[in-house]
Amino acid sequence: MTDERPTGLKASKGIELLTLGTPNGVKASIILEELKEAYGKEYTWQSIDIMQNIQKEPWFTKLGPNGRIPVIVDHDQGGFAVQEGLAILTYLTRHYDPDHKFSFTDPLDISRAEQWMAWQHGGLGPMQGQANHFNRFAKERIPYGMQRYTGETERLVGILDSHLKTTDYLVGNKYSIADIASFGWVNTLRFAGVELDDFPNLKAWSERINARPAVQKGLAVPQKITFGNDTYLKRLEEDEEYAKKEKELREQIAAAKDQYGYKYASP
Amino acid sequence: MTDERPTGLKASKGIELLTLGTPNGVKASIILEELKEAYGKEYTWQSIDIMQNIQKEPWFTKLGPNGRIPVIVDHDQGGFAVQEGLAILTYLTRHYDPDHKFSFTDPLDISRAEQWMAWQHGGLGPMQGQANHFNRFAKERIPYGMQRYTGETERLVGILDSHLKTTDYLVGNKYSIADIASFGWVNTLRFAGVELDDFPNLKAWSERINARPAVQKGLAVPQKITFGNDTYLKRLEEDEEYAKKEKELREQIAAAKDQYGYKYASP
Repeated sequence: MTDERPTGLKASKGIELLTLGTPNGVKASIILEELKEAYGKEYTWQSIDIMQNIQKEPWFTKLGPNGRIPVIVDHDQGGFAVQEGLAILTYLTRHYDPDHKFSFTDPLDISRAEQWMAWQHGGLGPMQGQANHFNRFAKERIPYGMQRYTGETERLVGILDSHLKTTDYLVGNKYSIADIASFGWVNTLRFAGVELDDFPNLKAWSERINARPAVQKGLAVPQKITFGNDTYLKRLEEDEEYAKKEKELREQIAAAKDQYGYKYASP
Repeated sequence: MTDERPTGLKASKGIELLTLGTPNGVKASIILEELKEAYGKEYTWQSIDIMQNIQKEPWFTKLGPNGRIPVIVDHDQGGFAVQEGLAILTYLTRHYDPDHKFSFTDPLDISRAEQWMAWQHGGLGPMQGQANHFNRFAKERIPYGMQRYTGETERLVGILDSHLKTTDYLVGNKYSIADIASFGWVNTLRFAGVELDDFPNLKAWSERINARPAVQKGLAVPQKITFGNDTYLKRLEEDEEYAKKEKELREQIAAAKDQYGYKYASP
């Protein structure tokens, strides 16, 4: 977070990214850092404080009508704006990944990548988001919502885990935008109340991606979140009070699952 | 619904569609009917009864690992399977819409269409789906969930309505896969507890799309649903008991909004 409150675009060439370090935000910053490392493609970013509803202001919604981060603006294409993580990943690679280092040329691989991105965009993202809402942010504790969305998130990551049994990356055994789309959400899975250790293939995949320098740089734009899997575990170890509260939350989620007879089933 | 329980694929050439007439299912059947009308492209379909969990059976999840309809299989591409509505729309037009009657060639229009499809796939679809769940299908009546998702659906369709103020279709003033993606959901908006009449541009757009013969044919695969906007209104007029229950539901949603101070705000 900067002290300055953004009131409009600040760059006049290249890509400008309006973002925050959320699971959706890092899709854009990670691919931009990858393109920067691979091709020297520079970009500018501005931090959008969603708690201040900057993403709901007219200058922002003119660019991203949905009023959500991330949004990119391509000043080299007449200020063309792109909203929605999936569309940002495909736009950037179509225009600025000429060697297809993070994307594909084979029509069926293009579709495979699109299918995994759409799967994340319509499933893992919204459902894990709702788990966070009911587990942590809702004004009241509603067991039905807690188990519904934590359970659905488990079902979804079970599908990823199963797919990753025989491959290191989601499409063509090559790191790509398909992996980037889901990574931000998997990287905050523990915070959502899901045991990453129950999904060993997914955990290994997540560590492979985390090991990339550009991913680490992307995660730090605008600044690193405190609820990533690694920092979350570290905090549990270091902060007794926090660990106690988190243990209570886990128990509440487990009780909610019991109450509604939730049974992990994938798919 | 047929009496036969599908146990595997039945065609050996062309496109085979595994589907049901849900808001997501009709994305696939509508584009396939459009391609049939425009190019004579034939397809086969099988009805997948989701109440019987046929979409969770191994033969199905081998094709669509997410265990959801619709899924298409392209027998002319070695049995290549595509899951996720967005990816089905783009796959079919990339391969079988050579004149770009329902898709685009301009790179920025391609992105615009992708943005609207992703917006539907990650927003309108999942959120309206949750509204239906809390308003109708959840085992208990939870006012918090009812107002949260009905309200978010209203916010989302408000964005569509606003965009349609100055254009007849979502991208390039031309009917395309971008429109098809959202149409199925808008077509069941009344059932979700949202007043379509409050969104006049959206209503006019929906009527424009409904007037297309291929859309009517697509809506009838495998069979026409009973909760489309038109049939829903008709049933309200004809079935006094149903009308009374629906009025009660509307009142419950309104009360839930009052309880949580919900205020319609778009975006």
